[in-house]
Amino acid sequence: METQTTVELVEKMLAGDPRALARLISQVERGDVEVPEIMQRIYPALGRAYCVGITGPPGAGKSTLTDKLTELARREGKTVGIIAVDPTSPFSGGALLGDRVRMQQHFLDAGVFIRSMATRGSHGGLPQTARGVIKLLDAAGRDLIFVETVGVGQTELDIVETADTVVVVLVPEAGDAVQTMKAGLMEIADIFVVNKADREGAERLQRELRLLVDMHAQRNGWRIPVLATEAPKGVGVEALYAAIAAHRQALQESGQLAARRRAHRRKELLDLLQHRLLAALVAQLEKDRVLLALVEQVQEGVLDPYSAAQQILKDREALWHSPNS
Amino acid sequence: METQTTVELVEKMLAGDPRALARLISQVERGDVEVPEIMQRIYPALGRAYCVGITGPPGAGKSTLTDKLTELARREGKTVGIIAVDPTSPFSGGALLGDRVRMQQHFLDAGVFIRSMATRGSHGGLPQTARGVIKLLDAAGRDLIFVETVGVGQTELDIVETADTVVVVLVPEAGDAVQTMKAGLMEIADIFVVNKADREGAERLQRELRLLVDMHAQRNGWRIPVLATEAPKGVGVEALYAAIAAHRQALQESGQLAARRRAHRRKELLDLLQHRLLAALVAQLEKDRVLLALVEQVQEGVLDPYSAAQQILKDREALWHSPNS
Repeated sequence: METQTTVELVEKMLAGDPRALARLISQVERGDVEVPEIMQRIYPALGRAYCVGITGPPGAGKSTLTDKLTELARREGKTVGIIAVDPTSPFSGGALLGDRVRMQQHFLDAGVFIRSMATRGSHGGLPQTARGVIKLLDAAGRDLIFVETVGVGQTELDIVETADTVVVVLVPEAGDAVQTMKAGLMEIADIFVVNKADREGAERLQRELRLLVDMHAQRNGWRIPVLATEAPKGVGVEALYAAIAAHRQALQESGQLAARRRAHRRKELLDLLQHRLLAALVAQLEKDRVLLALVEQVQEGVLDPYSAAQQILKDREALWHSPNS
Repeated sequence: METQTTVELVEKMLAGDPRALARLISQVERGDVEVPEIMQRIYPALGRAYCVGITGPPGAGKSTLTDKLTELARREGKTVGIIAVDPTSPFSGGALLGDRVRMQQHFLDAGVFIRSMATRGSHGGLPQTARGVIKLLDAAGRDLIFVETVGVGQTELDIVETADTVVVVLVPEAGDAVQTMKAGLMEIADIFVVNKADREGAERLQRELRLLVDMHAQRNGWRIPVLATEAPKGVGVEALYAAIAAHRQALQESGQLAARRRAHRRKELLDLLQHRLLAALVAQLEKDRVLLALVEQVQEGVLDPYSAAQQILKDREALWHSPNS
């Protein structure tokens, strides 16, 4: 493989080269030293793509639903990027089965780019890596980006919350689990989907979700729709696609899209700073005898971590006080 | 409610007062300013309890299994603490249904202390809060502490990995999901349990797990057992209880228990430092005009976060270099 500079790779990617895109994504996933430069260079090209988060319990049919939405987008001539973040997939150490099946389906369509993230313990954390990949897809000119995550853990929610529109997919069987998480779902959902709607309990779940939506105040004038789908047959997918478009328009008209993106950017900056600060500290811990001794005492259980943290940070918190205050 | 100093509360808790324990737990959950002092004061009393993590997908029967294990421990005269960390429960804004049912079951038994954690976005993060509560239960003299989490997200794995022994509970129905996460399960499991073993597919899942265990090298001489249980009937629970005791003994004999606890303490210290550093930085961001302007540019999307982080940290990373190097 020929060596290419970051500048060359980014230029090729911006010009539409899918191999350059794939290589840059790998760099972001590995946390290469070039990542800051890549991000700086693509920054002017960002903000065009619309990002849709698809979340729900394992087995809810998120992948099939995403595929069907992708088909609709492709019919409109829109290009699509799909990021599948499966908290279990990192463990499998490679691509998911579903991912390979999909790859075949869309193999000949250059308008669909699919990447599954296998990044447990990735440099900077999974959410930061996902954000980087979303940006690359945005800069590469994808119109729509779907981010699929199993929505059970906090990390996964952090990821899906970076989307512009969040679709929460539930299945009738999940009834009991849903009971306990309803209020939390309300916090993140812009659209509810009851998938596998031909199964028993689907109507009851829909009724419950509608009740839930009615009980809550409308969020900036948006009433969360509760849709029913049967993803493999495509039933209800057009209505879902339309609901995503309607939510996008509502966000734009209310000014909420800009507000959400501001909040996401702030969160990203803070995450980045936190990560850098810790990296700098860990590097220092390994060189400083006094600090090392404190760490050793904590490891041995003879010093509590709060006292150690206090001593380690004692002289260092003052460092934030710059002359600009 | 009378006002008590932290010293008084900790003393009462160490003397066995359950109300003092409950109040201290609430303080840790809220992230009160007294937390460092509480942790410092209880530190000498730590290390006696044995902590067992119970993890698995939603609906695997973790709570029932934990209850049955608790019964066995109580028969031996051991006191028990149970922490149920459900990533969905934070959303419900209160106690889980299952938690209330349990509370009734163990209501009259002072030897069992149960707490469900409802701490999304808690001060210092869920893992840090869970660690604090585990310590309080340890200091309060609990012999055995069970930490129950839904093991799907990274945050939840972080929590369960702070345990001495990790039990991974699976159900036959989870077959497909298990396929993709097997290697990851191997990374964290000390004991596998196939619960609801009367259901179809249980034997197949057991065979697959045994195959998986056989394929991997033994970890410090411990061969991961694959057990079958029917929690509501108590079938197989004694064997599980015995396996936990056997793992504990193996860890002690190989010196791995001390090594694991060292690693956990180091991780805790680093998490704490990271959290403190960010808090100090955020406080400073709000006071410093130059920093505020950088944050604003990032929020507006006119400056990329990597460049901003570089500028913000530019003069500050050097401050780690203390004269002790």
